[in-house]
Amino acid sequence: MDYQAVLEEVAAHARPYVRQGRVADYIPALERVSADRFGIAVADIHGEVYGVGDWEVPFSVQSISKAFSLALVMAQSHGGHDDGIWRRVGREPSGTPFNSLVQLEAENGIPRNPFINAGALVVTDRLQTLTGDASTSMLHFLREESGNPDLAFDQSVADSEAEHGDRNAALAHFMASFGNLENPVPSVIEHYFWQCSIEMSCRDLAVAGGFLARHGLRADGSRLLEAREAKRINAVMLTCGTYDAAGEFAYRVGLPAKSGVGGGIIAVIPGRCTLCVWSPGLDARGNSVAGAAALDHFTTLTGWSVF
Amino acid sequence: MDYQAVLEEVAAHARPYVRQGRVADYIPALERVSADRFGIAVADIHGEVYGVGDWEVPFSVQSISKAFSLALVMAQSHGGHDDGIWRRVGREPSGTPFNSLVQLEAENGIPRNPFINAGALVVTDRLQTLTGDASTSMLHFLREESGNPDLAFDQSVADSEAEHGDRNAALAHFMASFGNLENPVPSVIEHYFWQCSIEMSCRDLAVAGGFLARHGLRADGSRLLEAREAKRINAVMLTCGTYDAAGEFAYRVGLPAKSGVGGGIIAVIPGRCTLCVWSPGLDARGNSVAGAAALDHFTTLTGWSVF
Amino acid sequence: MDYQAVLEEVAAHARPYVRQGRVADYIPALERVSADRFGIAVADIHGEVYGVGDWEVPFSVQSISKAFSLALVMAQSHGGHDDGIWRRVGREPSGTPFNSLVQLEAENGIPRNPFINAGALVVTDRLQTLTGDASTSMLHFLREESGNPDLAFDQSVADSEAEHGDRNAALAHFMASFGNLENPVPSVIEHYFWQCSIEMSCRDLAVAGGFLARHGLRADGSRLLEAREAKRINAVMLTCGTYDAAGEFAYRVGLPAKSGVGGGIIAVIPGRCTLCVWSPGLDARGNSVAGAAALDHFTTLTGWSVF
Amino acid sequence: MDYQAVLEEVAAHARPYVRQGRVADYIPALERVSADRFGIAVADIHGEVYGVGDWEVPFSVQSISKAFSLALVMAQSHGGHDDGIWRRVGREPSGTPFNSLVQLEAENGIPRNPFINAGALVVTDRLQTLTGDASTSMLHFLREESGNPDLAFDQSVADSEAEHGDRNAALAHFMASFGNLENPVPSVIEHYFWQCSIEMSCRDLAVAGGFLARHGLRADGSRLLEAREAKRINAVMLTCGTYDAAGEFAYRVGLPAKSGVGGGIIAVIPGRCTLCVWSPGLDARGNSVAGAAALDHFTTLTGWSVF
Repeated sequence: MDYQAVLEEVAAHARPYVRQGRVADYIPALERVSADRFGIAVADIHGEVYGVGDWEVPFSVQSISKAFSLALVMAQSHGGHDDGIWRRVGREPSGTPFNSLVQLEAENGIPRNPFINAGALVVTDRLQTLTGDASTSMLHFLREESGNPDLAFDQSVADSEAEHGDRNAALAHFMASFGNLENPVPSVIEHYFWQCSIEMSCRDLAVAGGFLARHGLRADGSRLLEAREAKRINAVMLTCGTYDAAGEFAYRVGLPAKSGVGGGIIAVIPGRCTLCVWSPGLDARGNSVAGAAALDHFTTLTGWSVF
Repeated sequence: MDYQAVLEEVAAHARPYVRQGRVADYIPALERVSADRFGIAVADIHGEVYGVGDWEVPFSVQSISKAFSLALVMAQSHGGHDDGIWRRVGREPSGTPFNSLVQLEAENGIPRNPFINAGALVVTDRLQTLTGDASTSMLHFLREESGNPDLAFDQSVADSEAEHGDRNAALAHFMASFGNLENPVPSVIEHYFWQCSIEMSCRDLAVAGGFLARHGLRADGSRLLEAREAKRINAVMLTCGTYDAAGEFAYRVGLPAKSGVGGGIIAVIPGRCTLCVWSPGLDARGNSVAGAAALDHFTTLTGWSVF
Repeated sequence: MDYQAVLEEVAAHARPYVRQGRVADYIPALERVSADRFGIAVADIHGEVYGVGDWEVPFSVQSISKAFSLALVMAQSHGGHDDGIWRRVGREPSGTPFNSLVQLEAENGIPRNPFINAGALVVTDRLQTLTGDASTSMLHFLREESGNPDLAFDQSVADSEAEHGDRNAALAHFMASFGNLENPVPSVIEHYFWQCSIEMSCRDLAVAGGFLARHGLRADGSRLLEAREAKRINAVMLTCGTYDAAGEFAYRVGLPAKSGVGGGIIAVIPGRCTLCVWSPGLDARGNSVAGAAALDHFTTLTGWSVF
Repeated sequence: MDYQAVLEEVAAHARPYVRQGRVADYIPALERVSADRFGIAVADIHGEVYGVGDWEVPFSVQSISKAFSLALVMAQSHGGHDDGIWRRVGREPSGTPFNSLVQLEAENGIPRNPFINAGALVVTDRLQTLTGDASTSMLHFLREESGNPDLAFDQSVADSEAEHGDRNAALAHFMASFGNLENPVPSVIEHYFWQCSIEMSCRDLAVAGGFLARHGLRADGSRLLEAREAKRINAVMLTCGTYDAAGEFAYRVGLPAKSGVGGGIIAVIPGRCTLCVWSPGLDARGNSVAGAAALDHFTTLTGWSVF
């Protein structure tokens, strides 16, 4: 596969979609990003990386961090096996907008899955218990795995999130009222916001997410997760990774993916490669318009949907 | 009407219901109250008071305070006329349990009515803005109106509420995320808990609630509310005052009423009198079992339902 | 009380509201009614009747029939006492639009109250069992009670309802799936539509609803309902009688009332009189705009809200 | 791959799960099936079939028929391209039990996906319009594709469904009230029940579902669906095919699958084979307990999850 040629064709196809949708504006630090940006990168399982456009420009990972925090919790648990996290968060698509409280109330404070905000707060809470510092442990992991020691939190983003964080505070307090948090609400929220604020490029994310295509092996060949566990994270990404458009995304693209309101999407082709695409304009459900178009075209060109 | 004789017959009728239901146990300070307690008091519109049983024993007013905070907000508003509070809270029965988040989410952070927790938080927030000290202003009003200068907050109850207050914190943060709070969340919650923690007897509450039977006139003859406003508070009490059993309560008792999980219920017979009954055992919806039976029998004996 | 003078003042006050709102257009037979119509009638407990405007013009009673079918079921039950109907339908406000399926699903096919469509279907089903012909028995009752032997069904309305009756069919089948219907779905729906199609004037309805103001006594002095039962129907009307605006209606008007999408509203002042007002323009919740304004002004002029 | 050996190991693994769960008992014809049954079959893309246990015993396909009706509608549409069906039914997981009315109401009569009952009724309605006889056209297709000319409806099952079909009637009338049915409700329901009543064995279903593994090619090599369409049906099966356990199923098994309350499950390994497993004991969400265990073990042994 000539990845570089494919990416260039994909970028050409996606170009008309750039500037479509709306740049996330609920916090000023995101709003300032130019809607013109578009980048895409592929890291194959051998570590080769290809990219087009703004593929080396850092952006705010936002909810893409949820895939990494889930992986770290699974990796930290006893011998890499599934652990108690699944008693505290489900694995079903939410069926409703991504920060809904309705199901949380109906289901006794157990979030539907680890990729809605409530579920990610539970995962962060668990990572905090396991590591003592959820956000720093994730940052260190991402630096090592991406090979980019310059990765950092963006304090202005984290501060902005905190200022506009009443809904996440509501979710956290609500779960705490059901006994589903181990650490104090303010600490969990703070680490959650720090995680979301990490800045990474398409290159960084494609490389750092390589373990999902390598059935759990890290860049250095050591094992982060059992093959079964890596597959299972992919399964959760496919059914729950793109907010309440997961069904639509599976239908169009057919790949495990996790999106963020910064406009990034990572996607996994198990056994082959990890992709990351970025363009800030979002559709009504919070996924990058040009990013989804690019991934759609990538699977059309390569025939590599999982189906 | 020989109130004393009626109250004695009512108390005899209600006796078998005492100890039925469950004493509220979500905070230790409430759990310690004896389930044997039963008291009832009537204050007629001329200020005469009658009582039976534990009618002079103070108990935690809890949600009964919501009727007073609504009255104080309405009274503080320009010239006693309806004000902006009704743009921030509705007047419809909630149709779901009293601290539900579902409708709050569906209706953009506007609580259904001022007597569910979310709505009472909005009213407290408004009272805080109007007075600068929502809980103290309510305490002073209740002392004056009841003629009992010893009324006080119960700090152990307020502290317990705060310790178990994650659900109210969730409600408040959630409304804040919709822009429906004027003051900081912790301050609103604190004043709300202080209001709920006030200790009053059946006597105190029946006397303090006299303005609802006197079409808005205070004990000293001055006007707190326009007649129309007092009627409207009664209307909200009838349709929303007893959690999600308001329809049942209207059917059985037929009086405007407001209950609290401390086991108290105040009820109003417009133009005649205000009652307060107390017995700590609660039914599944949070209303005093013996209290409801007593009010039911009172209207049967007197024929004084509003219908 | 000079009813005639009051009604004239009320009509003058309501006049600017006539033509506001929208005439029900979901069935052609209703849509054809002129939006200019306005009538109001009062029948006092002694049988004197007063009216203004189009008070003698027949209109489609629609959901006002629900109050009469409930009364007839209660009257037919053993000795006039409450019977099993309340095991099959609740007494709580619905909290959601009047033909919602949500609560019905959450609550195992038991409708919230007898005045939402689902609840009225259950009441009609019960009346069908008790009488063998629910719609004819209601028509006969209304003829006798109103003293108008010409009352009749409007076949074009009933037929139109049936043609557009998928939602009611859905409700009925859904309740049948929970075992909450005694008769075949098509039969229940047919009788329900016939009941709704009855044509009556404000005069007819005010007179026929006199028993609600007379604590259960019929026009001829015989007893239809126990006093307690009549009060209880009034209570259900106040908390549930005006679709999901019952709280607002209680707040503004303060009277037990039942509205219909034909633009009619009956209201009860217990011990005094029964009113009926009619104007076809409906607000967003299905209640007559000018009708509600008229009742609001009536209670303002007379001071006769129940609160 | 030695399919026969793998199936035998899978059957041995699944054996302890047989008789777990509950046999569907909502209609008598299903209830009579022995809980001891277990069969599994694989049809590879070349038409070779392997089986173990009761793999040649016919059972009621029930909701498995939904995958075939969707395929037939997509195939019948203009040139095999996506058509208007997706304006009438969504592609998102439902997030709530499979015959819920809640989302249908919130989303204007558009079912969440084609595999919940409401969505399948819409697909059947469309197939009825396209073919003039939805159930017969499906039966003919399944006979041809399975190579089994003896496939037939089970009239006792169809009749039983109809007798207990109030909930489906409610769904259909409800969608009709939103204008989302093209044919009369009774006709749509009848064809839907007939489709569900078809009796097929694991062998029949694995062979008939071969086009899903062959990227749209039928057994005779002709094209039923574009490759892209076949992939998309697989995507919908993975995200929505196992009632509200689709996320869990993707996590454990990692294959597109469609289950039925008769105890059957078909699953697809794109490019390789189609499986069908059958055992009547169902878990709380309506999926075969031993069937899910068998598929889980199959992917463990072969490593053939799509992730």
